[in-house]
Amino acid sequence: MTGGARRRLPREERHAQLLEVGRRQVERSSLDALSTDDVAAEAGISRGLLFHYFPTREDFLVALTEAAAEELLALTAPDPQLEPLSRLWEGLRAYVDYVVQHRELYLALIRGAAGGGAAMKEVFERTRGVLADRLIEGVSEEPEGAPAALRYAARGYVASVEEIVVSWLREEERTVAREELLALLEAIAVSTFTAAGFPVEGRGGGAPV
Amino acid sequence: MTGGARRRLPREERHAQLLEVGRRQVERSSLDALSTDDVAAEAGISRGLLFHYFPTREDFLVALTEAAAEELLALTAPDPQLEPLSRLWEGLRAYVDYVVQHRELYLALIRGAAGGGAAMKEVFERTRGVLADRLIEGVSEEPEGAPAALRYAARGYVASVEEIVVSWLREEERTVAREELLALLEAIAVSTFTAAGFPVEGRGGGAPV
Repeated sequence: MTGGARRRLPREERHAQLLEVGRRQVERSSLDALSTDDVAAEAGISRGLLFHYFPTREDFLVALTEAAAEELLALTAPDPQLEPLSRLWEGLRAYVDYVVQHRELYLALIRGAAGGGAAMKEVFERTRGVLADRLIEGVSEEPEGAPAALRYAARGYVASVEEIVVSWLREEERTVAREELLALLEAIAVSTFTAAGFPVEGRGGGAPV
Repeated sequence: MTGGARRRLPREERHAQLLEVGRRQVERSSLDALSTDDVAAEAGISRGLLFHYFPTREDFLVALTEAAAEELLALTAPDPQLEPLSRLWEGLRAYVDYVVQHRELYLALIRGAAGGGAAMKEVFERTRGVLADRLIEGVSEEPEGAPAALRYAARGYVASVEEIVVSWLREEERTVAREELLALLEAIAVSTFTAAGFPVEGRGGGAPV
């Protein structure tokens, strides 16, 4: 709630406010359950004005997903002060933190809303591509000319992390602690890149689960 | 084309015929481009009759995707005569064969149609689950009581294979041959299950790409 209903906001502020309200509603329930009517009501504007900013519900969901993707990428962005491999491990840690703190937003980003169309898939593919490129930069000294095996392994690893994290989030009884999950993800990273011809060393953060 | 137009077919045969026509059309173009009008025309029936079998286009796409999933699972089903690990490698080989022969059907299954809803996701999740269970049976002597790390690693590996195979299919210039792709997928399997605490041995099918 921003207090005063129907206050006139500059275009950009209104846009950001609607995304913020939508995001809170997704976090309280899910992307599929999001009602644009509820968003308009909580923002104190008419449905018509919401559709002025986002012509369809799908447009609104895509914008929400894009904002979540940007946030995830920003929060997991590598610290250039760190060694390439440490960047990789810190990125993984930040990734799991994001997932734990923003479960529904993350699931929305990874699985899309039921009925999510091409635009939503595009956000997802782009995000996966950025994460894969960061991995390649973490393990290769010449990321530009990375061989196919490394590019495939990096994309495969990102997909694998997504799937494992989603499975972990969905377990009714969380039998694996966050630190154990991280150790498993690290061990798979080490072994995957080694299998692709780019041996990397783990942080020795403990045996897998 | 089945020849005689508007021939009366028993319900089950008509159902199978429509799926077969739909499948051919997907293989000629893509799931997204599929027109139920074209399917009805090629099958020699009215649009109304098609919608009698599949009330919405989405229902038809889900049925096509389900049929593709069943076919993929049947063609990659493990041969009980083989050792568990050989089953795993043969399954991987059959999987890549399926993908190469049925590119569009495979992409439809993995990525869903743009706009694919909950039912399509459900087919996809179920297929991924069966493939992961087979992997667990391939590497563990007690698949029923598989520890979380192995379950996660198996699901992650299936996701990783999907992503790698889709990336490979999409490369404009195929720089990696089928055998090299298989060697990479095998190497990642060996290393992933070993990282999860279930050391497996590859077939020594050559160094990764």
